[in-house]
Amino acid sequence: MKIYKCDAHLEHQSKIELNPGRFVPTLDVAKRTVVVLDALRQAGHTDVLDCAPASKQDLSTIHSEDYLEFLARAWDEWSRSFGTELDGVGFVWPHRNRPPRCPTAIEGKIAYYMFDGVSTITPAMWPATLGAAGASLRGARDLRLSGSAGLVLARPPGHHACRDMGGGTSYTNHTALAAQELTRDGARVAILDVDAHHGNGAQDIFWTRSDVLTISLHTDPAVDYPYFSGYADEIGAEAGEGFNVNVPLRPGTDWSGYREGLTAAIERLRDYSPDYVVVALGVDTYAKDPAGRLALDLDDFSRIGETVASLGCPHMFVLEGGYCLEAIGPCVLNVVAPGG
Amino acid sequence: MKIYKCDAHLEHQSKIELNPGRFVPTLDVAKRTVVVLDALRQAGHTDVLDCAPASKQDLSTIHSEDYLEFLARAWDEWSRSFGTELDGVGFVWPHRNRPPRCPTAIEGKIAYYMFDGVSTITPAMWPATLGAAGASLRGARDLRLSGSAGLVLARPPGHHACRDMGGGTSYTNHTALAAQELTRDGARVAILDVDAHHGNGAQDIFWTRSDVLTISLHTDPAVDYPYFSGYADEIGAEAGEGFNVNVPLRPGTDWSGYREGLTAAIERLRDYSPDYVVVALGVDTYAKDPAGRLALDLDDFSRIGETVASLGCPHMFVLEGGYCLEAIGPCVLNVVAPGG
Repeated sequence: MKIYKCDAHLEHQSKIELNPGRFVPTLDVAKRTVVVLDALRQAGHTDVLDCAPASKQDLSTIHSEDYLEFLARAWDEWSRSFGTELDGVGFVWPHRNRPPRCPTAIEGKIAYYMFDGVSTITPAMWPATLGAAGASLRGARDLRLSGSAGLVLARPPGHHACRDMGGGTSYTNHTALAAQELTRDGARVAILDVDAHHGNGAQDIFWTRSDVLTISLHTDPAVDYPYFSGYADEIGAEAGEGFNVNVPLRPGTDWSGYREGLTAAIERLRDYSPDYVVVALGVDTYAKDPAGRLALDLDDFSRIGETVASLGCPHMFVLEGGYCLEAIGPCVLNVVAPGG
Repeated sequence: MKIYKCDAHLEHQSKIELNPGRFVPTLDVAKRTVVVLDALRQAGHTDVLDCAPASKQDLSTIHSEDYLEFLARAWDEWSRSFGTELDGVGFVWPHRNRPPRCPTAIEGKIAYYMFDGVSTITPAMWPATLGAAGASLRGARDLRLSGSAGLVLARPPGHHACRDMGGGTSYTNHTALAAQELTRDGARVAILDVDAHHGNGAQDIFWTRSDVLTISLHTDPAVDYPYFSGYADEIGAEAGEGFNVNVPLRPGTDWSGYREGLTAAIERLRDYSPDYVVVALGVDTYAKDPAGRLALDLDDFSRIGETVASLGCPHMFVLEGGYCLEAIGPCVLNVVAPGG
């Protein structure tokens, strides 16, 4: 299995993230990819490719121009107004009683484009997310050419990034970018998001399209992040109606409940009969993960990997969440190489 | 001049408020009303009435049932989930790409109902805002009966509170409640909001109504709080079209620019020929105010007061923002008693 990475993200480190009622140290630390790579290498997966960053133009296939422009300039604008000591975080958000317009002040722009206080603006956020996008794009291109599975060690995560909004430590959507790349030449793609939180970004980006089936298993958003999307009745619209599948799970769900949801998802996926599958590989479903509320154990990740492999469909994995530094290496390894 | 107050708010004290990139001590301290009352008493205004709190039913004329229910239970739900040490603040907000629904977890409800991190959930927030609403309601009833001007020492402020959302340290809208009370018997009411920030709450509550003209002078929301409302092209809708007037002002505007905006507002107000005027009296337009970006001096507040008095229309004042503890007493006094 080929592993795709770009080290630009090592410079990106939010100091803080907003939690209910307070700031806490961010969970998305650079070490996450280091420990995963170590685990993979120790298991003999040494085919690691250092990738070039994506360009703004690459990303314009899935993100709006104005959003990319915001991301590219955000740190400069923030630091000019508020200095370099603090990460950029909004403090007021669009009001749901009015159609929002984007203010001109940077703190207003952050409020407009970032839907939470988790994704902060840092000096290296933009090159980091371009790097992760570049690795994902390269992985998708290789999959198109070779048909062989790869793993993208993307960081920061991307699956919460919508067409013109970021959140959940995501700025650009690497999983969606890979899927978009794979739809070239008319191919049909399925995204299977197994992160503990709703893959709201791909849902948004492919909402009206039938050439990308988006499936997400996650904790019920009525009680967990991101709260405002991920409900079962969100099924897509227009040409995309019926091509978005959300499987909300109760907090504390272990393999027995998870398997049930996964089985339903896989059935829908088989019906769709995609040419490619992109797995949004969050491993914060692990029982001890500090950001997740599901209860999978290490063996369950092998079961997820076996399920994906059993599809017999060309596929790739893109790393999303997973914050338990002691476990994320084995979790990822078990999914991508379930046979050991 | 009669002064209306309710001391329930003295127990309400947010520990923090979210600013760009960090939490800071809140500016809306209980002492604000104490120093204003002292200044008024020293100037001979000693007719102070202690008022009963409003009821939820009183407030249901301007707020939705579900929002009031949220406010009433918010602290209990918050403290049950997150303890009593932290004020309740959201960390993720409704996504502007989807029609939002209200989650069931309290941190999600806070995100749904409070549009910023400035208005925190505290143990005494609900009785405090009921108290301020009660004082305002009493002031409005007395104005209906006697026709004589009064000042409501409302705290927390209310003018950012919409029909079903709060923000900007506002939970329920005392100014709007007074206006609503005054519309009984078919009277026409004008709200003149001179706070440094857009009176988005009254705009929202009376958006489709022509019996309440809402006028607000404030710093341009493209560069100042609340960022997502207060633009000049927001003029109301349906029966209310043309009955909402926003006058955005550049940061740093002093009396010369302010007078120009006020003159235009007053002209519109005279055209409307209301039976009553409710002045949303924020004095954070003062040059040294820590929350405002306009540049009025103490004499300018007398000029505002003279302008209101010159209308010759029965009116009342409801305290809104104003955070420079050394100056807010004289500022308020100059408006409500411009002749000294």
